[in-house]
Amino acid sequence: MHCIKVSSLLRLGSELLNLTEELFSPTSLRSYFAEFISTFIFVFLGVGSAMSADATSAETGVLAVAVAHAFALVVAMYLAGDISDGHVNPAVTYGLVVGGHVSGLTGICYCMAQLSGSVTACVALILAIPTTRPDPKISGLADVAIEALATFAIVYAVYVARDLRNGSRGIMGPIAVGFIYGANILVTAPLTGGSMNPARSFGPAFVTGDMKKQWVYWVGPLVGGGIAGLVYESLMTTSNGQPPSSISSVG
Amino acid sequence: MHCIKVSSLLRLGSELLNLTEELFSPTSLRSYFAEFISTFIFVFLGVGSAMSADATSAETGVLAVAVAHAFALVVAMYLAGDISDGHVNPAVTYGLVVGGHVSGLTGICYCMAQLSGSVTACVALILAIPTTRPDPKISGLADVAIEALATFAIVYAVYVARDLRNGSRGIMGPIAVGFIYGANILVTAPLTGGSMNPARSFGPAFVTGDMKKQWVYWVGPLVGGGIAGLVYESLMTTSNGQPPSSISSVG
Amino acid sequence: MHCIKVSSLLRLGSELLNLTEELFSPTSLRSYFAEFISTFIFVFLGVGSAMSADATSAETGVLAVAVAHAFALVVAMYLAGDISDGHVNPAVTYGLVVGGHVSGLTGICYCMAQLSGSVTACVALILAIPTTRPDPKISGLADVAIEALATFAIVYAVYVARDLRNGSRGIMGPIAVGFIYGANILVTAPLTGGSMNPARSFGPAFVTGDMKKQWVYWVGPLVGGGIAGLVYESLMTTSNGQPPSSISSVG
Amino acid sequence: MHCIKVSSLLRLGSELLNLTEELFSPTSLRSYFAEFISTFIFVFLGVGSAMSADATSAETGVLAVAVAHAFALVVAMYLAGDISDGHVNPAVTYGLVVGGHVSGLTGICYCMAQLSGSVTACVALILAIPTTRPDPKISGLADVAIEALATFAIVYAVYVARDLRNGSRGIMGPIAVGFIYGANILVTAPLTGGSMNPARSFGPAFVTGDMKKQWVYWVGPLVGGGIAGLVYESLMTTSNGQPPSSISSVG
Repeated sequence: MHCIKVSSLLRLGSELLNLTEELFSPTSLRSYFAEFISTFIFVFLGVGSAMSADATSAETGVLAVAVAHAFALVVAMYLAGDISDGHVNPAVTYGLVVGGHVSGLTGICYCMAQLSGSVTACVALILAIPTTRPDPKISGLADVAIEALATFAIVYAVYVARDLRNGSRGIMGPIAVGFIYGANILVTAPLTGGSMNPARSFGPAFVTGDMKKQWVYWVGPLVGGGIAGLVYESLMTTSNGQPPSSISSVG
Repeated sequence: MHCIKVSSLLRLGSELLNLTEELFSPTSLRSYFAEFISTFIFVFLGVGSAMSADATSAETGVLAVAVAHAFALVVAMYLAGDISDGHVNPAVTYGLVVGGHVSGLTGICYCMAQLSGSVTACVALILAIPTTRPDPKISGLADVAIEALATFAIVYAVYVARDLRNGSRGIMGPIAVGFIYGANILVTAPLTGGSMNPARSFGPAFVTGDMKKQWVYWVGPLVGGGIAGLVYESLMTTSNGQPPSSISSVG
Repeated sequence: MHCIKVSSLLRLGSELLNLTEELFSPTSLRSYFAEFISTFIFVFLGVGSAMSADATSAETGVLAVAVAHAFALVVAMYLAGDISDGHVNPAVTYGLVVGGHVSGLTGICYCMAQLSGSVTACVALILAIPTTRPDPKISGLADVAIEALATFAIVYAVYVARDLRNGSRGIMGPIAVGFIYGANILVTAPLTGGSMNPARSFGPAFVTGDMKKQWVYWVGPLVGGGIAGLVYESLMTTSNGQPPSSISSVG
Repeated sequence: MHCIKVSSLLRLGSELLNLTEELFSPTSLRSYFAEFISTFIFVFLGVGSAMSADATSAETGVLAVAVAHAFALVVAMYLAGDISDGHVNPAVTYGLVVGGHVSGLTGICYCMAQLSGSVTACVALILAIPTTRPDPKISGLADVAIEALATFAIVYAVYVARDLRNGSRGIMGPIAVGFIYGANILVTAPLTGGSMNPARSFGPAFVTGDMKKQWVYWVGPLVGGGIAGLVYESLMTTSNGQPPSSISSVG
């Protein structure tokens, strides 16, 4: 009887270990990160567009915010793709737990990742969109930060589109990147003028001779684009060099 | 001669039985339910966006309502997919009856399902969107109901997208869910603030410290998402566990 | 020498006959009709949305008209699909003649079809959208006509989507039908209230008890939908019952 | 030792030659041209829509500009497709250099092509959109130029869609051409009235009898469409008659 208890404890311990291994395996961690980054981008675009619409008291308010959210969610789901299915929403995760497609513990980890992504996006927005900008220097740095954040999302989407381009979802690549650009404009146009692309800014500057803010439109996008390349390569590519999109789906 | 009459009556009876069996087979009932739910979502978004546009007398009225209808119909057809072809419109059903692709009796059942879905959506809207809200408590419950209804549509769409993800229509998943989110915003933004996603609301609340309406944005979406999971699993999954999308098309 | 002349004349005659046969073969005639119908729908939506935007002097004018044209052209090209490639534009046909992909004579037939479709759409619009409507009876008939025209386009699109649903373009079906519905709203909302769907109108009427214009929203869409079924079945389905989409492309 | 130095120099020379050959091979030059043309179209639509929105001080300003950019980038990436991946943005190119997917020298060539495309588009816009138009004759020519530029983009997109129509990306053809038409309207509607299609203009002119500006809507689109056919056939089709889309991707 004593040895049965020991074996039970051993089995329990081994099950806990299995569970922990599964919850924190590289594949699982990658799926939490995919939820984090997709929710970050979704909230950055959704909340950011609402802040910009309020700031400019635009007549198109609700429609612009609706379009920004629609575009942002199309992209957020596309970016997370097979890795985490792109819930970016505790209600979606809960709905799938109810249907038995996601375990309760995995669901809690997903929610944590989603809430972290949302809070991080809002902290970034608060820091980058000061309602009052007394000092032009700080204003310039905030503009660089907004351009960098917005361009990060674009280049990250380009990386995902590259990995998926040979499958049937390759079709979606241009739509995903185009939609994220449109949503970015709704956030950034009233703040920085909305470039996210040095070439987009260079042409008008060259023709009009107004090179004043050019540095913002080069430093911001290049920093954001470079970071996107580093993050995607280091966190979202598996050790054998395969894109994570070829990993079988979680849940 | 007498026995011929009897055999004729027997044949007629057996044909009626066959017809009844066909009209009320599990596959047919599922297709009526698909029409009901797609029309419910289409009318909830279409009529709801028009009510919201009127309520706020938005400048973007017609365009916002047009975008809501376009997004809503893309989604309504996608959701009903192979099960009922997603007519959500008696004129479409009639057009297919005229062309000989749907039998008259099936067409009548489809229309009944469509009209029921439309009436149910309008009853829900009337109950959930009171033009005058004297009592804050009732207001809170109405907001929870709107958030639940809107989130129901999102999570239902996520379920369909999951079932279709391995076929060529898997590409459409993010577009369908993103479009439904955008149309939802056009309905709910002027009423509840438009969350349908606890993570979307938690970030701004955490950063600003304003947790006042947080319970609405958690209770509503989780209730709606959970119900979507239960409804889809119990009514739209066949007995052998296959998603209904693998059933051959009706009509 | 005399008999050589005769044989030359015979050869010329036979070549002319071949050319005539090719220009007016069932496949060619079907491709002209596809150009006619696609241009008709494109111009009905494009010019109609501009007329509606002018009539209501909407603030969203240019954006609404741009969205209507974008949606309308996506649909017009989708509808003509493999049958005529969906030029709906003499400049496109000319560009393909320059590149050697369409013969000059075929190009002229395409242009004739496009110009006829455009004129027919504008005649329909002028007749159906009277700027002054003194007589309520005429007004009701004009509303029925507009609802019928707009619903014709929707049900025609449903027919095309049905024929293409098993190929890779089946994905596009819900997008095409949803986009045409959105563009229709931009044309019809300021005129008839914009139904194109009896179920869409029945719900609000049932809940509010206002059945006044219900007959318009039933007669118009059912007439338009029925005509679409008849036109598609009789003109766009080949004699062997195959959908025309399975015919190899022209040009 | 002496002969080792010589062999080293020879090897260095041969490597430089290889590098030069690779950087300026027909495939590479075609990819630079694809970047040039896609950035040209993207900036023409993006900057042009912003100029038009400013000129008309439209209420829908930011939303219209965001939609124009989203549509334009979807199309720009689709057009460049497999040939150059459609970066149209130095930040994207830089992000891919950081991840090791594009060599530094190729990246510099891409950037040069992007900046040239942007400057060319802005020069075209400045020339074609004069803020003051004292002379009606010049005004007419500027209108022809705008219509030609906008139609060039449409017919170029039709050519790409034709080449891709048999693969899975054939689905995207109507969306790409429809989106470019919508973005074109946002640029041209306040300037020329926005035709880009003689059939679109002929119908209303025929019905109303107002043929005044018809020549602009025929000459502009036909010139632009013809040039698109010539450019695509001569620069983007490989010597063996294969469309460039069948060439393996660069980077």
